[in-house]
Amino acid sequence: MYPKSIRDLIDCFKYLPGIGDKSAERMTFSMLNLPAEKINEFINTITNIRDNVKKCEICGNLCEDNICNICSNLSRNKKIIFVVEKAKDIYLFEKLGIYNGVYHVLDGLISPIDGIHPEDLKINELKERIKNDNVEEIILALKPSIEGETTMQYLKKILSDFNVKISKIATGVPLGMDMEYIDTLTLELALEERKDI
Amino acid sequence: MYPKSIRDLIDCFKYLPGIGDKSAERMTFSMLNLPAEKINEFINTITNIRDNVKKCEICGNLCEDNICNICSNLSRNKKIIFVVEKAKDIYLFEKLGIYNGVYHVLDGLISPIDGIHPEDLKINELKERIKNDNVEEIILALKPSIEGETTMQYLKKILSDFNVKISKIATGVPLGMDMEYIDTLTLELALEERKDI
Repeated sequence: MYPKSIRDLIDCFKYLPGIGDKSAERMTFSMLNLPAEKINEFINTITNIRDNVKKCEICGNLCEDNICNICSNLSRNKKIIFVVEKAKDIYLFEKLGIYNGVYHVLDGLISPIDGIHPEDLKINELKERIKNDNVEEIILALKPSIEGETTMQYLKKILSDFNVKISKIATGVPLGMDMEYIDTLTLELALEERKDI
Repeated sequence: MYPKSIRDLIDCFKYLPGIGDKSAERMTFSMLNLPAEKINEFINTITNIRDNVKKCEICGNLCEDNICNICSNLSRNKKIIFVVEKAKDIYLFEKLGIYNGVYHVLDGLISPIDGIHPEDLKINELKERIKNDNVEEIILALKPSIEGETTMQYLKKILSDFNVKISKIATGVPLGMDMEYIDTLTLELALEERKDI
């Protein structure tokens, strides 16, 4: 049996999704091998995360100010809103460097089975933004799953009152992926949404 | 680009061996989703690890006292020492519940290419224990790699002055493992060390 302080840290690592017993043990013992100053860095950076990371009051992105650097950037087009499930998704698309609009984090997807209903998401906030900023286009970039599709359908319905163009990012076979590893639903969708060439 | 406090934590996670960019990002964002009290638990347990975990003065095991609970256990046989590379290995063997002797952590393996020489390991401490406790048997449980074998050969030579039985744990094909996934050196060893049945 490990000493208590070791067991406690193993249990902490297991709070992180996808981290099981083995990984948590490995990370804890790795940490035990770090020099004290690196352990201190860990303590300080986690403390910083707790104290300094907030959600952008406009879009829900993670930031250290009240407004994130995308929303506060005057050169970004506020008339196009890219809707994502969680803040991390913003960075995936920002890395592409091809989008110049702004974002909106829903903070989840509709999933009645998990008790997540429309009112639990930042949908009213999205409607407010569309109204106040005269938004012209909404791009939905939600996971192509039952929850993602349900949320997109819901948004489509609820946003039909507004004079706004709504699109969603394409589903299909990812580049370089062997067909045999793709699930049948994706293949079906890829066939349905085939494009003339 | 992530906010600075997020980037800092990602960089910290990358101090842990085997954690690359993707895993570090995933863990950082998972941590951002934890409630404040769990983040506090993380900070406290890492602080505890830093302040309270020491090495047993006798065997090098990790513990919260000066002597670990294996060395301080009067029912353990001090005449048999099980030699391991690192403290974590002790727990792998302790979980089996079949060994009643004590341990000795070398704190590494001889590896001239990495600049690790015999004097960097806890070999003198092992010799002292053998002498002072009239140890009768040494079991070497080091990784079957070049470094492990070098260290075992070195220990065999240096301990030949003592009247002590030295053995090493068996190498071979692990149970349930398909032959085709086993490297050739292991297969060679498994063949060399074949046993009559």
